[in-house]
Amino acid sequence: MESAVLDPVKNSVHELDTLFKPKSIAIIGASQKELSIGNVIIKNLVHFGFTGDIYPINPKMDEIRGIKAYPTIFDVPGTIDLAHVIIPAKMVPQAIEDCGKKGIKSVIINSAGFSEMGDEGIALQKEFLSKAKQYGIRIFGPNCQGIINTDPDYKAYCDFTFTFPKPGGISIVALSGGVGAFIMQSLYDLEIGMRFYASNGNACDVSIPDVLEYYGEDDQTKAIILYTEGLSNPLDFMEVARKVTRRKPILAMKAGRTEEGAKAAASHTGSLAGVDISTELIFEKTGILAFNNEEEMCQVAMAFATQPFPKGNRVGIITNTGGPAVIATDELISAGLQLPALSDRAKAVLQATMLPEATIGNPIDVVATGGGAHFRSAMDVLMDEESIDSIYINFVTAPFTDTNEVARNIVEVSNLRKKPIICNFMTNMSLERFQETAKILKDGGVPCYSFPTTAAKALGALYRYSKLRARDIGEPALLNVMNTKIAEISLNQSKKEGRSYLTADRVYDLLTAYGIPVPEWWLANDIYEAENAAINIGFPVVLKAESAAIVHKSDMGGVVINLKSAEEVRVAAEKMRDAFGDKGLKYLVQKFLPGGKELIAGVSTKPGLGHLVMFGLGGIYVEVLKDVVFKIAPVTDVEAREMLSSIKATRLLDGVRGEKGINKEKVIDIIQRISKLVTDFPMITEMDMNPIIAINDKVYVVDARIKID
Amino acid sequence: MESAVLDPVKNSVHELDTLFKPKSIAIIGASQKELSIGNVIIKNLVHFGFTGDIYPINPKMDEIRGIKAYPTIFDVPGTIDLAHVIIPAKMVPQAIEDCGKKGIKSVIINSAGFSEMGDEGIALQKEFLSKAKQYGIRIFGPNCQGIINTDPDYKAYCDFTFTFPKPGGISIVALSGGVGAFIMQSLYDLEIGMRFYASNGNACDVSIPDVLEYYGEDDQTKAIILYTEGLSNPLDFMEVARKVTRRKPILAMKAGRTEEGAKAAASHTGSLAGVDISTELIFEKTGILAFNNEEEMCQVAMAFATQPFPKGNRVGIITNTGGPAVIATDELISAGLQLPALSDRAKAVLQATMLPEATIGNPIDVVATGGGAHFRSAMDVLMDEESIDSIYINFVTAPFTDTNEVARNIVEVSNLRKKPIICNFMTNMSLERFQETAKILKDGGVPCYSFPTTAAKALGALYRYSKLRARDIGEPALLNVMNTKIAEISLNQSKKEGRSYLTADRVYDLLTAYGIPVPEWWLANDIYEAENAAINIGFPVVLKAESAAIVHKSDMGGVVINLKSAEEVRVAAEKMRDAFGDKGLKYLVQKFLPGGKELIAGVSTKPGLGHLVMFGLGGIYVEVLKDVVFKIAPVTDVEAREMLSSIKATRLLDGVRGEKGINKEKVIDIIQRISKLVTDFPMITEMDMNPIIAINDKVYVVDARIKID
Repeated sequence: MESAVLDPVKNSVHELDTLFKPKSIAIIGASQKELSIGNVIIKNLVHFGFTGDIYPINPKMDEIRGIKAYPTIFDVPGTIDLAHVIIPAKMVPQAIEDCGKKGIKSVIINSAGFSEMGDEGIALQKEFLSKAKQYGIRIFGPNCQGIINTDPDYKAYCDFTFTFPKPGGISIVALSGGVGAFIMQSLYDLEIGMRFYASNGNACDVSIPDVLEYYGEDDQTKAIILYTEGLSNPLDFMEVARKVTRRKPILAMKAGRTEEGAKAAASHTGSLAGVDISTELIFEKTGILAFNNEEEMCQVAMAFATQPFPKGNRVGIITNTGGPAVIATDELISAGLQLPALSDRAKAVLQATMLPEATIGNPIDVVATGGGAHFRSAMDVLMDEESIDSIYINFVTAPFTDTNEVARNIVEVSNLRKKPIICNFMTNMSLERFQETAKILKDGGVPCYSFPTTAAKALGALYRYSKLRARDIGEPALLNVMNTKIAEISLNQSKKEGRSYLTADRVYDLLTAYGIPVPEWWLANDIYEAENAAINIGFPVVLKAESAAIVHKSDMGGVVINLKSAEEVRVAAEKMRDAFGDKGLKYLVQKFLPGGKELIAGVSTKPGLGHLVMFGLGGIYVEVLKDVVFKIAPVTDVEAREMLSSIKATRLLDGVRGEKGINKEKVIDIIQRISKLVTDFPMITEMDMNPIIAINDKVYVVDARIKID
Repeated sequence: MESAVLDPVKNSVHELDTLFKPKSIAIIGASQKELSIGNVIIKNLVHFGFTGDIYPINPKMDEIRGIKAYPTIFDVPGTIDLAHVIIPAKMVPQAIEDCGKKGIKSVIINSAGFSEMGDEGIALQKEFLSKAKQYGIRIFGPNCQGIINTDPDYKAYCDFTFTFPKPGGISIVALSGGVGAFIMQSLYDLEIGMRFYASNGNACDVSIPDVLEYYGEDDQTKAIILYTEGLSNPLDFMEVARKVTRRKPILAMKAGRTEEGAKAAASHTGSLAGVDISTELIFEKTGILAFNNEEEMCQVAMAFATQPFPKGNRVGIITNTGGPAVIATDELISAGLQLPALSDRAKAVLQATMLPEATIGNPIDVVATGGGAHFRSAMDVLMDEESIDSIYINFVTAPFTDTNEVARNIVEVSNLRKKPIICNFMTNMSLERFQETAKILKDGGVPCYSFPTTAAKALGALYRYSKLRARDIGEPALLNVMNTKIAEISLNQSKKEGRSYLTADRVYDLLTAYGIPVPEWWLANDIYEAENAAINIGFPVVLKAESAAIVHKSDMGGVVINLKSAEEVRVAAEKMRDAFGDKGLKYLVQKFLPGGKELIAGVSTKPGLGHLVMFGLGGIYVEVLKDVVFKIAPVTDVEAREMLSSIKATRLLDGVRGEKGINKEKVIDIIQRISKLVTDFPMITEMDMNPIIAINDKVYVVDARIKID
């Protein structure tokens, strides 16, 4: 680990330094065959200018690509930081053992033939992994591309791809090598510099969270691009992602968002994939900037590579042509930004400095004949405006202006790094003079786009991240009045009895134990008891037939509402007895709450992730309009509040058409208690609270099903 | 017009041929000053290789840019098809008169200083227009860029922009020259050929519909790109657009879709602009493919330039890398396409021809080592599959395959033009061998994209257009049982009385005259009459206070529902009399219809366009969820049906939770009758039918307001 200690960029030693910052690399399976991986990797290391030592390992060759080869790693004189393994799968476990003996701490296994190939491969993977553990080796792969580090101190191209990025601030991690490679290529085409690249294939040891954590701690990484088709360990991922997004943006895309896409993903990787909303929720909860369009994600990365983040949503537009400012305005507004009016002071300065035909306002139209001084004055004014957080520029290269002068001024102001600047640069790049202008802008770190909408989307994304970072979802609240002991006993008892659904009395007891209000109720053993219970509770009441045999009781006449007397209760109960039979039948009597607003909540479980909590309005809002929202448990008060405000029909909660609004604080409290309940008792796999009735400033869970495992 | 007659491409003569296909061009205001418009246009004509004669007009010069100049157009020996006018605004009317005398039939006025500059400019514009009319001259502009025709027979670059497109099948028309120029540049950058270009500035004579019509009739134009910030003559536009879209696609973007964007648009052009939904509706009604993202529109154009349209939504994917197929699948599915399973026959062929590690399915993964023969077989199979309408290809250039061979095979199959092929071509264009592969694909007319989502969006757009073209919205139906005479009398009488809102009795009479069902009603002059009317109608009834003085009657206690006896009617009526006073008060008695489903419909007017008809569910659906849909009148039955099916809560119309569905045919009929009513009587500027009650298979307009002008 000596090499890492000497690392001038970062003084602390990280376990993955030998992977990402190797000083010496052995290629086990080096080959003289052109285009073979064992040859291409050596070629790439040399071509990219790897600053350390390259040791081709091949028992039959003296040298490969002009570099001295060694029969085995034991013949290599010095220490080896990192080994590539490119040999048949069966020989890999022995190779790992050898690596351990040689003291190698990181290994990239490019070879395929492991977990993606069925049982035999899985066994081989287990075998080499146990050897790796034994020797403290971190394994990257197998069945993977590898890593790239563009740092001039390392220049480690440990990969067989063929794009050679220049150094920069974006680091990429991708599950799929195919997608990772084309994202890298796209950044290259967009002239965006790259820091690290990692595509870890089967990911048997070094995981995406490991890589993210490493990128997060790397000071040179300004932003991270992540591509995945599913998360194999969502909880690890969340923990790391939450930490990293506080320090720097993660731009992420998860493919397989449609059923067909998920099927395609499952067929080409061994990774967990499925159409679910959990990845989206994970991105949201951890503050990751999610994209559905990889082209947009790459374009946006250009802005993240150099620009500061805006403090707010107020943008000033400078343009030298009308139409593109209209298009940009549309997109900026759609992205949640605003175009505030300029102050009188700003207008006065512009009046004095602009051409007479210029438009003083927001947008500021410096007109096509406007030169460097006009752009400069407009930028200076916007930089000084307190009501402006970011600057959007449309810059069309009119043939009659000194476009280089304009570009130099944009770069100078951008270099102040006071407020983000995005430039839509519309030109004809086949003309040499405009290539020069473009070079001034790009070398100056100004993000340049060729379409107003695209440039506006980039600024929108900067703003979206600044909002995400400022947002604090808080911690799960400490909730009072809870009796976890009662809950535990009730759940364990139900489990012991072999039930998968709790009985009604246990459901209501459990909810009550967690401080979740339920309407007054009694579980009566016979009709006489039901009548008396109804009298005690007070009319009107609801009567529900309770029996393990009755599953969909409301469809079967097992629920009768609005009973107004003991007589009505008796008649209803007798009908139930006739319908369902006496055996095991009990009668749940419950206070009836007419006229309230129907809400619903629910809980489901995602393997490896835990519980999702759902909230919505009941009835047609959930059934027809699917107007529900999910969050990953544990749900904080901020999140519970967001749930209420993010359903489409949220205004109904405040009361419309003369209705009174509901007590939202009570609902927020109930959501958190539900979250707490399932977090405390992971054995609860499903909850369905439908309806929850909000009435007269109170909120009650009227009916609930709880499933345990 | 001699030149147009000789036109080999099209034998019929079009009035705009002298504009788009000039054989001789005079530049009035030709200048020797570099970068001046009067110089750049001559330079551009020469540079682009204009095949006709160029006549610089300048009284002081013998030649300009080496071309003989003439003091006046009268000194030019031959005929002149087209004149550019680049002289101060004040001199333009005289110049137009001179053009008329010389027999010039088309003039591009590049000069500014007209309608965009206030009253004086407007007067000048009127003046030259009247002269143009007198001499039969078509005016393009003023304050505009001009036109470009890339046809090798003309090579007319009548514009001062600086992008020189190669010939191709896309024609562009843009209101904003700034946006037009960058769209042209984008096509150029994407290596998409262009046919015509036109940016007509103030558009005082030759309008966007004129240009669209011309493009529509041009056989070489495969697809049209339109950019606008508002339509000054929507009805003309619709008539032309409808005709053109039946023959070829129009890809269009309208900027100013946000309030702020519309404001920005208004500030930089004199054109009609405003945040409204009418442009969107016009695009929809006329079958125009609408875009909100100009980059996407340009990218999509590449596919439209060469590919046939798919017959249906079934796509087959061929890929040589996994991840990008997942991304493409997501986007294709989102765009409404499907990935059908392959037939057994197809699978058998693929089993025999693919590499062993290939995945036989949809997607077909030929794997990275797959070569030309493997791609070819997969394409042939998909071309033969009856269940496949289009082909999507992911082609990553693996270093160990003969990528040129793959490209040649793709081109060969694409050239059959049997089914559309879209290619996502992922490569490193800085490597010469892959440039060659790209060239084979591009020269072969295969649309190549660099991102899977982008390529999938292009195929999605082809499918969207094929659906639009197949869709026939029909003609407004001939509706029976209508008494237009009664309606006319009633409306005219109301107008004569100086009313802006019709009285209740006239509203119900008008609806009835147009066969729109209303609940039985009576307008009683006093309380006694109201009681009797209620008895005649039958209980329960609604009682409404009717008086010109009462505007929001339901807020003021002027509506009482569910009156069940004459006694209740009398009490309610007396309360109204006490509240509103006796003077001018009448009592509308109406059958009460409890328990039905509340719908709403409405009509509003858009200047220059006519009426918009709105439909939705009443109550919170309109108030909170804004779940309404608009169409431009006249509304056909197909459109009325689409209105019912396109509201978000459409499933409620079929009945949910045990409710009976409504009689949709009756609602469709009512919507068409409303549309017919306002089309027959444009003096109706507003209608508000709220609620419309659907009950027991019947539908009634229960309350309506009608405003006239």
